[in-house]
Amino acid sequence: MSQSLGKASIVPEKPVYILNSASVVGTKEGQGPLGLLFDMVGEDDMFGCATWEEAESTLQNKAVGLALEKAGVEKEDVSFLFAGDLLGQSIATSFGISTYQIPLLGVYGACSTCGESLLLGAMSVAGGFADRVLCVTSSHFASAEKEFRFPLEYGNQRPLSATWTVTGSAAFVLGGEEAVQKTKKNGRGGPRARITGMTAGKIVDYGLKDSMNMGACMAPAAASTLEQHFIDFGSQPDFYDKIITGDLGKVGQRVLIDLMKEKGYDILGRHMDCGIEIYDGESQDTHAGGSGCGCSAVTLSAYILRQLEERNWKKVLFLPTGALLSKTSFNEGKSVPGIAHCIVAESL
Amino acid sequence: MSQSLGKASIVPEKPVYILNSASVVGTKEGQGPLGLLFDMVGEDDMFGCATWEEAESTLQNKAVGLALEKAGVEKEDVSFLFAGDLLGQSIATSFGISTYQIPLLGVYGACSTCGESLLLGAMSVAGGFADRVLCVTSSHFASAEKEFRFPLEYGNQRPLSATWTVTGSAAFVLGGEEAVQKTKKNGRGGPRARITGMTAGKIVDYGLKDSMNMGACMAPAAASTLEQHFIDFGSQPDFYDKIITGDLGKVGQRVLIDLMKEKGYDILGRHMDCGIEIYDGESQDTHAGGSGCGCSAVTLSAYILRQLEERNWKKVLFLPTGALLSKTSFNEGKSVPGIAHCIVAESL
Repeated sequence: MSQSLGKASIVPEKPVYILNSASVVGTKEGQGPLGLLFDMVGEDDMFGCATWEEAESTLQNKAVGLALEKAGVEKEDVSFLFAGDLLGQSIATSFGISTYQIPLLGVYGACSTCGESLLLGAMSVAGGFADRVLCVTSSHFASAEKEFRFPLEYGNQRPLSATWTVTGSAAFVLGGEEAVQKTKKNGRGGPRARITGMTAGKIVDYGLKDSMNMGACMAPAAASTLEQHFIDFGSQPDFYDKIITGDLGKVGQRVLIDLMKEKGYDILGRHMDCGIEIYDGESQDTHAGGSGCGCSAVTLSAYILRQLEERNWKKVLFLPTGALLSKTSFNEGKSVPGIAHCIVAESL
Repeated sequence: MSQSLGKASIVPEKPVYILNSASVVGTKEGQGPLGLLFDMVGEDDMFGCATWEEAESTLQNKAVGLALEKAGVEKEDVSFLFAGDLLGQSIATSFGISTYQIPLLGVYGACSTCGESLLLGAMSVAGGFADRVLCVTSSHFASAEKEFRFPLEYGNQRPLSATWTVTGSAAFVLGGEEAVQKTKKNGRGGPRARITGMTAGKIVDYGLKDSMNMGACMAPAAASTLEQHFIDFGSQPDFYDKIITGDLGKVGQRVLIDLMKEKGYDILGRHMDCGIEIYDGESQDTHAGGSGCGCSAVTLSAYILRQLEERNWKKVLFLPTGALLSKTSFNEGKSVPGIAHCIVAESL
């Protein structure tokens, strides 16, 4: 059995479904254009915790709990949990999901982590290694600013190219045909969509060093993965109702569209960016858009899967984008390489 | 096709081989008991770089290059690279392996990362998602001290329970039957061993908070994964010639043996720890032993696989152990949870 396609792509031979999912966000995201669609909006961004890091852990914990509940799946029935976040040593994950006692396979792809976790989760279901798996990612505005930039108290100025890290987490329960039947027997909704293809991305480094313009840093990686995907699948932009990047924002979006035009692909009419959708840039002072692992994850759960369920869209390409930097690499004068992984999600 | 076993374990239906591997280490490791077995020992621990982080990136880069060369595999023939390290946002990986332009799936499991990357790599080969994959991990004494503890210049005292982070990286090329035939046609050696089972671990937190006694922090996780493995595979300690943990050191080893005895398993005669093997504790002043992602990885490549090749051992259980802490979580008074993933490696 070969489920590989080209060099970097996968076509599952057995269907892989997103059985259900859940999104938990902070106050700013709750006030944004997608606010009413999230499963849970915090009363404040501390989520009852003493530190920002604990708050982010709580986001993951609640997202996993809600996703399991919505899918009607017990935690004991989940084989693997693919999880990661932006913090050093992924501590939001380590302290967020340990209560579930599900075997953990930690992943790191910066803000592309949602795509990576879904790719690996779908692989483990399609390969017959697991009946049901969970994929969860998170980010938190305050823990990310502390991790990557300045203390919030410093009140640094943000250029217009900067993005605003989304406070949010989303969890996805994946499973095969058998898992769908069990879910139906439990009288639960879903599945929400089917994953029909994945393409893993390479690191792409154009030498940019501006951590306040991560859209431009990540756009070349998005273009690389997108081109590889079109080549491997023999597809064109109009094969998809939407081509959805994670958190390029307004600057990165323009770069991506231009880069793809140079490669011979016109994605202008079909491109959407979760970072642009999640906030109202004018009224919410978020500048180029939203970012963070949570940005694409909560938008997929709350908005994109809903469009697929309602069959407004039949097939989308979901392409979370990550900027591979750390405080240390930035301070040592290194560039900010990008990476992007994509999955194809289809309505049922 | 079901390749899952119990809740957390996997038995590949198609054989997965370690086609070849390579290890690169620093000066202290070169002077240790395994010194002559490593493929490359640096002249100094900077590896020609300006920073410790760049030095660690160079370790990964060299290990991947050597592993590909030894396996007779071109980088273009590798579908996925599973890679990770201990630094925040895995920057040793991001800046270490990008020149190879292989689709990257970043993993994080603290010092269990070698086990996790081999588990996922074997999964992707057994599932028919890839012909050949690479798994690489690294650690560096100086970058790890800076990341987790104190500046080296501070010269802090190390208690006897502390371990010494290994400066080293190892890379493993995995593939299926077809890849073995191609390697033989190229006149290269290998395969070195076969991977016949894997068990993914859960986070186990006994509430310990001492980052200078990580062996004790990780031992409960090692015991948990080991017990789960024995249950899932219906096996006993004497099914394996060696049961090899990653970096428990002398303190953690005693805790593990005691915990396993409580669970009804006597592993005393078969247990080996890479952290204990890699240094001569007496003459090298390394206290409880070696640690870090690189510790288990270079010991597997240089020593364990050699024992399997020479058929001194026929079947081993390789169980890298990780301590899930960060500077931030430690400073915020959090505990140090552990995690461990295991693979079964057999001689051919």
